[in-house]
Amino acid sequence: MSNDFLNKPASRRAFLSGSAAAVVGVAATGTARAATPDPLITEVQPWASGLGVGVDEVPYGLPIRFEDDVVRRNVEWLTADTISSINFTPIHALDGTITPAGCAFERHHSGAIELSKDDYRLMINGMVDRPLVFTYDDLERFPRENHTYFCECAANSGMEWAGAQLNGAQFTHGMIHNMEYTGVPLRTILEEAGYDTAGKWIFVEGADASSNGRSIPMEKALDDVLVAFKANGEALRKEHGYPVRLVVPGWEGNMWIKWLRRIEVLDRPVEGREETSKYTDTLADGTSRKWTWAMDAKSVVTSPSPQAPVAHGPGPLVITGLAWSGRGAITRVDVSKDGGKTWETARLAQPGDRMALTRFYLDTDWDGQEMLLQSRAMDDTGYVQPTKDQLREIRGENSIYHNNGIQTWWVRENGEAENVEVS
Amino acid sequence: MSNDFLNKPASRRAFLSGSAAAVVGVAATGTARAATPDPLITEVQPWASGLGVGVDEVPYGLPIRFEDDVVRRNVEWLTADTISSINFTPIHALDGTITPAGCAFERHHSGAIELSKDDYRLMINGMVDRPLVFTYDDLERFPRENHTYFCECAANSGMEWAGAQLNGAQFTHGMIHNMEYTGVPLRTILEEAGYDTAGKWIFVEGADASSNGRSIPMEKALDDVLVAFKANGEALRKEHGYPVRLVVPGWEGNMWIKWLRRIEVLDRPVEGREETSKYTDTLADGTSRKWTWAMDAKSVVTSPSPQAPVAHGPGPLVITGLAWSGRGAITRVDVSKDGGKTWETARLAQPGDRMALTRFYLDTDWDGQEMLLQSRAMDDTGYVQPTKDQLREIRGENSIYHNNGIQTWWVRENGEAENVEVS
Repeated sequence: MSNDFLNKPASRRAFLSGSAAAVVGVAATGTARAATPDPLITEVQPWASGLGVGVDEVPYGLPIRFEDDVVRRNVEWLTADTISSINFTPIHALDGTITPAGCAFERHHSGAIELSKDDYRLMINGMVDRPLVFTYDDLERFPRENHTYFCECAANSGMEWAGAQLNGAQFTHGMIHNMEYTGVPLRTILEEAGYDTAGKWIFVEGADASSNGRSIPMEKALDDVLVAFKANGEALRKEHGYPVRLVVPGWEGNMWIKWLRRIEVLDRPVEGREETSKYTDTLADGTSRKWTWAMDAKSVVTSPSPQAPVAHGPGPLVITGLAWSGRGAITRVDVSKDGGKTWETARLAQPGDRMALTRFYLDTDWDGQEMLLQSRAMDDTGYVQPTKDQLREIRGENSIYHNNGIQTWWVRENGEAENVEVS
Repeated sequence: MSNDFLNKPASRRAFLSGSAAAVVGVAATGTARAATPDPLITEVQPWASGLGVGVDEVPYGLPIRFEDDVVRRNVEWLTADTISSINFTPIHALDGTITPAGCAFERHHSGAIELSKDDYRLMINGMVDRPLVFTYDDLERFPRENHTYFCECAANSGMEWAGAQLNGAQFTHGMIHNMEYTGVPLRTILEEAGYDTAGKWIFVEGADASSNGRSIPMEKALDDVLVAFKANGEALRKEHGYPVRLVVPGWEGNMWIKWLRRIEVLDRPVEGREETSKYTDTLADGTSRKWTWAMDAKSVVTSPSPQAPVAHGPGPLVITGLAWSGRGAITRVDVSKDGGKTWETARLAQPGDRMALTRFYLDTDWDGQEMLLQSRAMDDTGYVQPTKDQLREIRGENSIYHNNGIQTWWVRENGEAENVEVS
C-alpha cells in the first residue's frame, strides 16, 4: 500500500544492489548445498511426514514455545513491591500496531483484582438530575462505539530523565499498548443521569483498594471518553480492568480507570493524591506542573534495539518503530543514523490514526558501520518531538512523568545495540 | 463517532422513553436498597479492601476465568477426525473487529505442526531467473507492509445449504478471523527471483504433511498477497502457520498457505487435489464450479443469537454483527426483524475497510415480541448479499463451499434465539 519502494524504479534498483548480501547469502547456501546438501531442503523433515496437533487440543491458544521470551517483564528495583508496579510490553519483538492483550503492559496501585460481571456496579452521582446505578447488563444496552487508541503510562521513559538507564525498548518505552476498544461513550452515561451543566468536572474511581481517583474536565468527558468493556474484540483482561474500564484517548494511562466503580459530577476538581503528590512534574525550582493530561508526540525505534540486535551483516536492513501523539494523528516520522545530525523521512505503514500507535519503517542499506539511531515524530498539530536536552532545559531533571524526548540506540558494527545519550 | 443517536434529539427522546426498563430497573434497585441495602453498593467488598495480583505473576496473560466459555469449539460429527478439522471462532461473544489469536478459528488438513524459525526455509523456483531459498532472517530484510484482513474458510456456513443446522453463530459463521498482518509483499519475492512474465500462475505449498498446494493467478500474486510473519503485532501462532503464512486478501482461507514452504512460477495451474476434488462447488447437474476464489459479501448478526440470547426484557436492545466482502469494502448493512419483509439500515462502527471485517450496530427499542433477525451486507462493487433460496436457485444444494446467504435467527419473547429458515 504505502510501499513507495515497489513503485519507484530508482529505489528498486537501489534495493536490488543493496540486497546483494542477502542474495549472496542465499547463493552461498545454494553452493554449499551442491557440496553438502541442506537437509532442510533435500530431506523430508518430521513435520512434513507426521501429523500435527488436532483442533480439539487448544480451545484458547498461547504463543508457540519458541516465542517464550516475548512476554511482559517487570523491573524489580523500580518499585518497592510488585503489587504496585509495572509490567512492560515487549515492543522490541512486536510489529504492526495492535498490542495483543496477553503481553500488553499492566500497571496497578494495589494489584489486579477479580471482579465478576454479576458483582459489577457503576454509580453516577453528584451534580446530576438522577443518581443512577448500572449493572453490567445495563451498560450493554447503550449504543456502542469502536476505536483503536494507545494507552501510555505517564511514567513511560521516566527513568531516562537522568540519562540512559535501562537497556531495552521494552523498558524505556514499554509502558504502552494499543488496542481496539468497544464501549459506551461516557457522554451517553452523563446524559442518562442528566448532568448539571454547572458541573465542569467529573471524578472517577475504580473498585480496587487503591481506587485511583482522578478528576477529568467535563469537556473531555463529553468529547471522546469511553466506558469500555472489550479490547481487541474480547472482554477486557483482568489486569486491564475487567469487566469495565475508562478509556481516555490520548491522556495519561493513570486516568484510564480500571474496574470503574463511580463517576461523580462536580463543579471543581478533587485534587486527589493521584493528581497532587503523584502525576505532577516537579520542576527545577521545586514547583510542580499539574493537569498534564495529554501525552505529547513521541516515538521510538523498536528494531534494531538492545533487545533486538541486527542479526546479519551489511546490506538491506529494516529499521522500524512506533510513533504516537495524544493530541492527534502522526503525520511524519524522521529517522537519524548519526545521532540527529542528518535525518531521513520514514515510511508510515498506514496513515496516522488519531491517538493510536503508528508503525514506521525505514528500508535502508546498512554499510556495516556503527549507527546512533534516533526517531523523531511529528503530529497534525505541527508539534515536533523534542530532544531529551530540550526537555531538560524547560523541565529540569526532577520529573518522573511525561518524558517524550528522542531516544538513541548505539548500534555497533557487530549489530548489538545499547541505550546511550547524545548531546 | 458515527453515533447518530446522540446527535438526534428525536432519537434521543425515543431512547430515553425506550430505556424506561433500564431506568426502572435501576430505580427498583434503589428502592430495594432503601429497604434492604444492596451490599455491592453499601458495603466494602473484598476486592476493594484487599490486594490483587502483582505484576510478576503473569508474563503472558489469558482471559479471566469468568470468560472460560469464550473459546474455539469444534463439532465432532463434522469431520472424521480432529487432525483434519476446524475449530470455530466464538464470534457470538466478541465485539469490535479484531479477532484475538487465542480464539481465532483454525483449520488443518494434517494438524498444526511445530516449525522453528531456524528450521524454516522458503524456496521459490520454476519460471524464474534465479531459484532462491530464503531463511526466516532473509525475509525480515525486505520492506514490510501492515494490513488488516479477514480470513474465511470457503466452507464457512456450508452446513446451511441443507437448511438451518447448527445452533449458534460460532458454528454457522465462525470459520473466520480478522487480524492485522505484517509481512513482505509476495510481489517483492517474485521480483527478487526475477519471475518470467510468461508465468501466469504460481503454485504455493506448506511444510506440513498435507502440503495443501494451491494455484494462484500471477495477477493476484503481484497485487496484494503477503508473505506474513506477524498477526495482531506478534508472531503467528503455531495453529496459524508459524513462522510464515501466505495472506491472500479476500480469497478463501484454504489458499492462505500456512508454514509456507515453496512458491513455484508456472505457465498453467497445477489442478491439485485442493482445487479439483476439494474447494469446488458441485452444481445441481453434477458439474463443478471451480476457481471460486473470492469470498462474496456476507454478514451475520452475532448478538442476539442462539449462544447470545437477550438477557433483558423489552426496551433498549443493541443488535450487532459482522459484515465482510472479499471483493472490496462494506458500504452498508441492513437489518430485518421480520424475516426480510422490512429492513432498517444499521450503523457501521467504522467506515468499511477493504477485505476486513466491519462491525455493525442497530440500536433499537425491542417491543418484547418475537423477531426473525436477519442482516444483509452490501459492498462497494454494488453487490447485495443474497438469500439462501436465491443461492440455491443458482447453485443447487450439493455445494459445501461459498454459502454467503442471509442468516436468520428466531428470537423468542423470552429472549432465546434459534437458527431457522425463512422462505
